[in-house]
Amino acid sequence: MKKKLGPKPIIMPMPCLLVGTYGEDGTPNAMTAAWASICCHKPLAAGVALRHSRLTFANLQRKKAFTLNVPSGAQAAGVDYLGTVSGSVKADKLQTAGFTATPGSVVDAPIIDNCPINLECELIDRMVIGSHSWFVGEIKEVQVDQAAVEEDGGLDIQAIDPLIYVPLVSEYRTLGKTVGQAFSIGKKISS
Amino acid sequence: MKKKLGPKPIIMPMPCLLVGTYGEDGTPNAMTAAWASICCHKPLAAGVALRHSRLTFANLQRKKAFTLNVPSGAQAAGVDYLGTVSGSVKADKLQTAGFTATPGSVVDAPIIDNCPINLECELIDRMVIGSHSWFVGEIKEVQVDQAAVEEDGGLDIQAIDPLIYVPLVSEYRTLGKTVGQAFSIGKKISS
Repeated sequence: MKKKLGPKPIIMPMPCLLVGTYGEDGTPNAMTAAWASICCHKPLAAGVALRHSRLTFANLQRKKAFTLNVPSGAQAAGVDYLGTVSGSVKADKLQTAGFTATPGSVVDAPIIDNCPINLECELIDRMVIGSHSWFVGEIKEVQVDQAAVEEDGGLDIQAIDPLIYVPLVSEYRTLGKTVGQAFSIGKKISS
Repeated sequence: MKKKLGPKPIIMPMPCLLVGTYGEDGTPNAMTAAWASICCHKPLAAGVALRHSRLTFANLQRKKAFTLNVPSGAQAAGVDYLGTVSGSVKADKLQTAGFTATPGSVVDAPIIDNCPINLECELIDRMVIGSHSWFVGEIKEVQVDQAAVEEDGGLDIQAIDPLIYVPLVSEYRTLGKTVGQAFSIGKKISS
């Protein structure tokens, strides 16, 4: 039996990303965004939904570049803060939240140093939907904490410990147990 | 210290959704998609990236409707199967994977009964990016397993147990521990 809830933004799980941009005067800014996804293979691209009133929206229109930074579970409080305070009101919000920024290696946007994964994106398209636009950036470079990269090039997911957002209940969570390997666990059905 | 990996599709976590559509002859179909996100508040909309060669791509173009279904951890094998087999090759892939479908309550697309959350979406726009297009659907209705809806209308996340996809390591995971409440845990910084 199902219960109808009416329209709700209830995809689970959601990521909890910091979107990094430079302001008009070069101040690094970051806002928290859970509405984001990879959206193309060729070119490899990521998208993020931004409300038109956001400072990040204006920054991105101007600089045509942004970063997506994956925070870890221990950074939940700072991430929450960055999602509730605008850089147009508090220019030093990044430092206040305990984060530092350095210039991207290939795009004109700041990387949030403390986050274990950083995607450097160059704006290639934008779709106006309504209250939000979907900004699409080509992923030009990805940087990962050295400590989370294993000798064989694989990733140590526990070292990354990506922060998760669960909508409706508004909870921050971490990853739980592994239930299977993709492109493998389904083979027992097809065979 | 960071290590550069080059361009990688490495947003974490990703959802692991079943995209439900009807084929030309009315056969319900579902494919697995991790590249999806809420993308607008007004109208409330969700987007999903689809490769142009996919059966779901053709179905969606024809019917202008789709569902996004959130599976639970126990359904990982079936979800993996649906991500590797095309409905154009195996028309009864849904049944083979252990899923059943019923018509959406307001859109012309099938709901995957076994999934604890179902979003019914009506196509409102599409953006061609490259190998993939970003399909945007207005969320017209959301259905949730009655057993996961608490008396006060809240959601029992453990009862939903949403399946998570972790890219690069290609792992299916479940949710882990709660590290904080959104719009709350950051207040200790701002106060």
